Amino acid sequence: MIKLEKLRKIGFSKLTPLEDALKKLFSHIHLNPIEEIEINSALNRILANDIICEIDIPPFDRSAMDGYAILAEDSFGASPKNPKSIKLIGITEIGESSTLKLNKGEGIRISTGAPTPKGADAVIKIEDTEIENNIINLYISLPPGKNISKQGEDIKIGTQVLDKGTELKAEHIALLTSLGFKNLEVRANTTVSIFSSGDELLEPGNTLLPGKIYNSNTPMISALVNLYGGEVIRGETVKDDKNVIKNRLVEAAEDSQIIIFTGGTSVGTKDYLPEVITESGIVLTHGVAQRPGAPVLIGLLSDTLIFCLPGTPVAAYVSFLKIAGLAIRNMMGCSILDPRSETIAEISRDVPVSGLGYIHYLRVIVEKSKNKFIAIPLKLKGSGVISSLTKSDGIVEIPPFKEGLRKGEKVIVKLFPR
Amino acid sequence: MIKLEKLRKIGFSKLTPLEDALKKLFSHIHLNPIEEIEINSALNRILANDIICEIDIPPFDRSAMDGYAILAEDSFGASPKNPKSIKLIGITEIGESSTLKLNKGEGIRISTGAPTPKGADAVIKIEDTEIENNIINLYISLPPGKNISKQGEDIKIGTQVLDKGTELKAEHIALLTSLGFKNLEVRANTTVSIFSSGDELLEPGNTLLPGKIYNSNTPMISALVNLYGGEVIRGETVKDDKNVIKNRLVEAAEDSQIIIFTGGTSVGTKDYLPEVITESGIVLTHGVAQRPGAPVLIGLLSDTLIFCLPGTPVAAYVSFLKIAGLAIRNMMGCSILDPRSETIAEISRDVPVSGLGYIHYLRVIVEKSKNKFIAIPLKLKGSGVISSLTKSDGIVEIPPFKEGLRKGEKVIVKLFPR
Repeated sequence: MIKLEKLRKIGFSKLTPLEDALKKLFSHIHLNPIEEIEINSALNRILANDIICEIDIPPFDRSAMDGYAILAEDSFGASPKNPKSIKLIGITEIGESSTLKLNKGEGIRISTGAPTPKGADAVIKIEDTEIENNIINLYISLPPGKNISKQGEDIKIGTQVLDKGTELKAEHIALLTSLGFKNLEVRANTTVSIFSSGDELLEPGNTLLPGKIYNSNTPMISALVNLYGGEVIRGETVKDDKNVIKNRLVEAAEDSQIIIFTGGTSVGTKDYLPEVITESGIVLTHGVAQRPGAPVLIGLLSDTLIFCLPGTPVAAYVSFLKIAGLAIRNMMGCSILDPRSETIAEISRDVPVSGLGYIHYLRVIVEKSKNKFIAIPLKLKGSGVISSLTKSDGIVEIPPFKEGLRKGEKVIVKLFPR
Repeated sequence: MIKLEKLRKIGFSKLTPLEDALKKLFSHIHLNPIEEIEINSALNRILANDIICEIDIPPFDRSAMDGYAILAEDSFGASPKNPKSIKLIGITEIGESSTLKLNKGEGIRISTGAPTPKGADAVIKIEDTEIENNIINLYISLPPGKNISKQGEDIKIGTQVLDKGTELKAEHIALLTSLGFKNLEVRANTTVSIFSSGDELLEPGNTLLPGKIYNSNTPMISALVNLYGGEVIRGETVKDDKNVIKNRLVEAAEDSQIIIFTGGTSVGTKDYLPEVITESGIVLTHGVAQRPGAPVLIGLLSDTLIFCLPGTPVAAYVSFLKIAGLAIRNMMGCSILDPRSETIAEISRDVPVSGLGYIHYLRVIVEKSKNKFIAIPLKLKGSGVISSLTKSDGIVEIPPFKEGLRKGEKVIVKLFPR
């Protein structure tokens, strides 16, 4: 259990369960405006409207094979030893609406995708025939309808084919293009400003000085925002100075829908951030019952959502995945807020949990063993260890009131976003 | 078994097993040149060199908590009922190399990430203390080393931290930045030209005419190339005209490392592509033992790889995933050629296979049921059905000489690229 007097010491009046923090957060989210884009740039965008099919797919009966359009009954009884014969009367070309009409005893050469000529009710594959002097020998017997894709067989006119909130991938783009879409309405990408604070932070390219470390949080969060479909409009390191932080926050709130701050949320000697947000905006939640990542602060500055994530990289990383990233996607109307792939694995050893009441995020390596996956927890110290992320494949969540995991227990691994 | 006389009829002398086709293909691949980029634009790029850590991470002993730096022995025997007392002698600020030296009986206020002062060997968390008049009461007993991240604890200088061929994601970017990298050597993205051929193809935005369909292959393949890290430099629909195709191919080969053609590879009445490639270049493989996707042609035009994929969208899609996509990533030196996530599932029903000798690609929906995944095969007709992709989650591969799947059998589902 999380003891209240301990929490007060570390600057939180209470730790909020993650679920409650998200519920409160989502109640402050507005959908981004809709914008029209060309379908060529639709990859990874979020569909703004349901899509109703306004044509039949395929739009006409067509051949699914290269061969001859025939009347099925002309092939009845045909076999390699007892072929049936019909007469070739022409070719129907792909992309053309044929004027040919097929009668009993006749065949028409046809390619995959070409419209089936009037009168034909089947297509015999070329490898099941032989032709000599315009006489086609049929070596197999076909039922009516064979090798013909009927108009509307894939999708009937009026069908809802995609739901709003779909994240558009190659297959959705193919579907939309086949319906004739050239432009498309999607939700605007969420605009995000990223700040890191900490006087120990040095920008890469500079010489490492005593007591300093390179700032890896801004580039890391920036990459995550991109992976989640947001648009980074600003990425800066700011001094641990209350006025500087305040000014930059207020400025960024004017053109950003979301501000993500790393560092400066706990009770270090110079952690001004909670103070600044209390003065200039509203603190929705300060302190979430998760490990790592407890010191998260969620706030509002006019309409801009502010997420102050811990400065330790792993805590910042998981807090992004579990909180800030979901807000970015929620604003875009995504139907799947958490884009990570899941796999089910057996945990390789007992994992005790200290600190009931917190969600624990366990970094694991996933290995395939015969026809199952094994999740191997990393041995590590602290949430500052970036290599614990590069060495592992994903995260197993241990719910707040579960007393650890037993070796062999099945767990869900959420793989890192890719 | 695939009968030879049948294959001859459909224009192939033989169908090559996928494995052999890939082996031959990969023997013609050269690595892309190395280019230097800023780390801010490194997301999804492929690391060109192994990365050796040239500093210790962390670069100095630092506090993992907000609290007081102490000598652990001063806390020995301390408990809430029997606190030990020490004297506060100062603050060590984050980002500074402290000149303070700690002696027995003394404590120094310290924030997470600040260097531990000389003489201190532990940090006590602020919530395990109380302070009054510069006297710090310690309420717990700490072992030496507690709450201190030792220099080099995460990564020791000289360690190889990332391997060449790594696809850079948020966590790798964080690691590289923490090592001080500002610029980075990566492999150039593979340049790809995309063509679709077919007189039935109409560009979106035009009115649908009899016998015509909208060309969905160019935008689909274009999205896939982007997802696989390639760079699309050209996307066109060309007429089914031998000279036009030949001229466009030769032109594109000058500035593309890969050309992907969809349509025109089988034995329809107007399929010129195999002819054109035989005349102007080399055919490496024509016909692969896979379903859908058998009519794939792999060729070379000087140094440019040419992939002619079937015109039916699903066949084009899976042939990209299994062949062309791997070539794109192989050229960039990716250590993981197939980027798709895998999950293990139980198949929901018997799946018979007709046509031993082919790899079969089964489209499945994946559903979570208790602590396992169920793979539900789609019922469908033909490989032209785009909605079979948008309705499913991934592909189960049935190996060439396996006689189908039994209900309840465990299968690997390769999820669609995301």
